[in-house]
Amino acid sequence: MSTRISRRRLLGIGAGVTGAAVTGAVLATHLPRADADAGAEEPFHGEHQAGIATPAQDRLVFAAFDVVTSDRGELREMLREWTAAAAAMAAGRAVPGGSTNPLAPPADTGEALGLPAAHLTVTLGFGPTLFDGRFGLAAYRPAALAELPALPGDQLERARSGGDLGVQACANDPVVAFHAVRNLARLGRGTVVVRWSQLGFGRTSSTSRSQATPRNLMGFKDGTRNVVGEDAAAMDAHVWVGDETDQSWMRGGSYLVARRIRMLIEAWDRSSLRDQQDTIGRLKTSGAPLTGRAEHDVPDFVAATHGSPVIPANAHIRLASPEENDGIRILRRGYSYTDGMDPVTGQLDAGLFFLAYQKDPRTQFVALQRRLGVHDALGEYIEHTGSALFACPPGVAPGQAWGEALFA
Amino acid sequence: MSTRISRRRLLGIGAGVTGAAVTGAVLATHLPRADADAGAEEPFHGEHQAGIATPAQDRLVFAAFDVVTSDRGELREMLREWTAAAAAMAAGRAVPGGSTNPLAPPADTGEALGLPAAHLTVTLGFGPTLFDGRFGLAAYRPAALAELPALPGDQLERARSGGDLGVQACANDPVVAFHAVRNLARLGRGTVVVRWSQLGFGRTSSTSRSQATPRNLMGFKDGTRNVVGEDAAAMDAHVWVGDETDQSWMRGGSYLVARRIRMLIEAWDRSSLRDQQDTIGRLKTSGAPLTGRAEHDVPDFVAATHGSPVIPANAHIRLASPEENDGIRILRRGYSYTDGMDPVTGQLDAGLFFLAYQKDPRTQFVALQRRLGVHDALGEYIEHTGSALFACPPGVAPGQAWGEALFA
Repeated sequence: MSTRISRRRLLGIGAGVTGAAVTGAVLATHLPRADADAGAEEPFHGEHQAGIATPAQDRLVFAAFDVVTSDRGELREMLREWTAAAAAMAAGRAVPGGSTNPLAPPADTGEALGLPAAHLTVTLGFGPTLFDGRFGLAAYRPAALAELPALPGDQLERARSGGDLGVQACANDPVVAFHAVRNLARLGRGTVVVRWSQLGFGRTSSTSRSQATPRNLMGFKDGTRNVVGEDAAAMDAHVWVGDETDQSWMRGGSYLVARRIRMLIEAWDRSSLRDQQDTIGRLKTSGAPLTGRAEHDVPDFVAATHGSPVIPANAHIRLASPEENDGIRILRRGYSYTDGMDPVTGQLDAGLFFLAYQKDPRTQFVALQRRLGVHDALGEYIEHTGSALFACPPGVAPGQAWGEALFA
Repeated sequence: MSTRISRRRLLGIGAGVTGAAVTGAVLATHLPRADADAGAEEPFHGEHQAGIATPAQDRLVFAAFDVVTSDRGELREMLREWTAAAAAMAAGRAVPGGSTNPLAPPADTGEALGLPAAHLTVTLGFGPTLFDGRFGLAAYRPAALAELPALPGDQLERARSGGDLGVQACANDPVVAFHAVRNLARLGRGTVVVRWSQLGFGRTSSTSRSQATPRNLMGFKDGTRNVVGEDAAAMDAHVWVGDETDQSWMRGGSYLVARRIRMLIEAWDRSSLRDQQDTIGRLKTSGAPLTGRAEHDVPDFVAATHGSPVIPANAHIRLASPEENDGIRILRRGYSYTDGMDPVTGQLDAGLFFLAYQKDPRTQFVALQRRLGVHDALGEYIEHTGSALFACPPGVAPGQAWGEALFA
C-alpha cells in the first residue's frame, strides 16, 4: 500500500543511507543536515497523546480551527481523516488516501517530501465552544473545560483567541510541523476554517531530564522547575486527567491553556541587569536562583540580606513557585515567536507562545495566573494578547479515531 | 578581553565537549541537538560579505530599518558598532562593549547565550532612500540602485516594502538569527527604527553544490539551476559587482532584491497534480523537468508531443530559464514564511520570502520579473506583497566598518 511508504523511501533513500548519492539519481547531493536522531519517529498511538510528555521539540506550529459545518457526521468523519493523516505524518509518511489520477489534487501538499519524521507530534484538543450544542455534545462537556475568566494582564485580541479545535504540531524541523497543520487544514476544508495560527521558532521549555533549559527572548532560563515527562508521579499528580474527572472520555487526557504572551522587548532591553535579575529572581548568565550558584539549585525564598529577601517578594520565580502556590505545578511547552512589527506601536511583536498542560485549569493555570498577574514584577514587561483552552483527549489505539467517544 | 570569550565558553563549555556534563555544573544536561558541524562559524571578514555565496543556512530573520537621525556622524558611528557586533556574533560571541555594572543594561540580550555560532552570517545593504541627500550621500548612489519600477504581479504593501538599510541574518538556528537582528536594532536605538521584519522558517534554495534542493510551500523543488557559490565564474558574471560599476565602493558587492511572495495556498492545494506540474514545468515528486527523469536533467524546451511543447509555453521553469532570458541568472536565497491568518481574506498568509543577489537589478531581476509577471502560469497562484532593494557593499577587513567608504 503506497501510503505506507515513508517520505524518504518514496525518493529512493534507503533507511540506512544518509548524506550520500542515492538510487535513481533523484537526490544528487546531501540530505539536510541532521544528527543521528533527527529522523526518529515519535509513536503516535498510545495511552496518552504524543506531544505532551514527549521531550519538547525545537519548533512549533499551532492552529486553532472553527467548525463551520452543522453536520455532526461531517465533523466525525473529518476527525477520522485527521487521525489517519496525523498517524501517517508522525511516521514520516505522506498523507494517505491519494488517488494516482493526475487530474485530481495530490493527497499531500508535498513540502515535507524527503524530510525525516523529525520527531513530529500532532496533538488535538477540543475547545469549550465545541460543546455549545451545535453537534449534540453539550452533555460531554467536562466541568474543567470552563471558559477562562478574565485575568490580570489580559490584553486579549479576539482574532488570536479561542477556537473549537486546537492542533499543536511540534517537530525538530519547522517545515515538517507546518506541513502537518497545513494538511489538516486542507483535509478539513468545508468542515473547519483556521481561526488563528502561530509559529514558534525556538523552544523555551524542557519537558525531559535529557534536555538543557533553553532561554526565552528575555535572555533568561525559565521553567527550570518544569514537570518532566519521565516523572510519572508528577505527570499523574499534575498533568494527566484521572478518575476525578466528570467525563470518562477525558481520562488519560489533559487540558491545554495556550497564551500568546507578548514581551515589551524594547523596555526590557533598556532595563538594567539588576532589574532584570530581580524581576525573574535568577542570575541571567548561569540561570541560578539569586540565592544559589547553579541553575538547578533550589531557590531559598527565606534568605534575606539587610532585612530584605534576596529573591524579591514580587520576583517571577517566587510567585510562580509550588512553595507559594500550594504545590501547584503545570507542564509547560513554551516557544519564542516573532510576528514582525506591530503597526500600531512601531515595536517588534515578539515574545512567548506559552502552552501549559494540566489536570484542571481552574485550580492550576487560573489560580497561578491570578496570583502572578497581580503581583509579578514581570507583568511590567509582558501582555497576554491571545488565549485559548482545549480539552485534549487521551491517546488512540491503532484503528481508533480522535473524538470517537464523543460520537458513540 | 571578556568580549572575545565565546558564548559557549562563557558557560564553561570547552570547545571539544558536547552533550556532556560540564564544569561548574552550569549546564547539567545536554546541549541542543546538533550535528558535528552545527557550531561552525562562517568567516565574517573577507573580500565579499558573508551570506551571499555562503551555503544557504536553514533559517532567516530579515529586517529593514529607516534612519531617524539627521546626524551623519551618528549613522556612521552606528555602522561601526553594527560591524563590531556582527563580527562578534558570527564568531559565536556576545555583543561586545558591555559594562559589568549591574545598574546598566546588559550589552547582549542573552537569548543566544550558550548556543553555537550556527553558521550565522549578517549581511548589510543600503536602500535607495539612504542616498536621498539627508546624509550627504547623493553622489555615492550607484545607477544600479534605481528604485524598482512597478512590475506585473505587484500587490505591494507599503509597510512591508522599502527601507534605508537592510539586514539579512541567516543561521541554522533561528534563535541565533533572531538574536542578531534584535541586537542590531537595540544598538541602533535613536538612530534607526525597524521598518519591517520577516522570519523565514525553512530555506527553499541551495547556493552550494553540497546542498540538496529543498522544496517550497508549493511542494516543488525550485531553483535547481541556481547560481552556486563555488562557481566563481558564474558569481563574477552574474552576482559580484565588478569594474563596470559607476561607484567604486560597490566593487565586490552585490545588489539584493527582496520580495515577499505570498502563495494562494488554498487555490494551489485544490489544483490537480497535472496543473501543478504544468505550472512549474517539473514533476512534483522527483523534481525532474517534464522532459527528464532526474532533478538535474537539463530541461528540453523544444521537445513536443502531439504538436504541443512538453514543457508548456507558460511554465515557470521555461520563462525563468537563462535560455529564454538572454542568459540572465541570479543567485537566490529563498525562505518559506508563514504569518498566520490574513484577517481580510481569512486565508493562511504564507509563501516565499525571495532574496535575489545580482550585479544589476535593472538588467537581471527587473528584466526577469517583467517577463515572468505577464506570462508565468505561476502568477495565478502568487502575489508579490513586499519589495525592497539594497546595495550590499563588499566585505570588510578586520578593523574596517561597513559603509566607511561612504563617509571618507
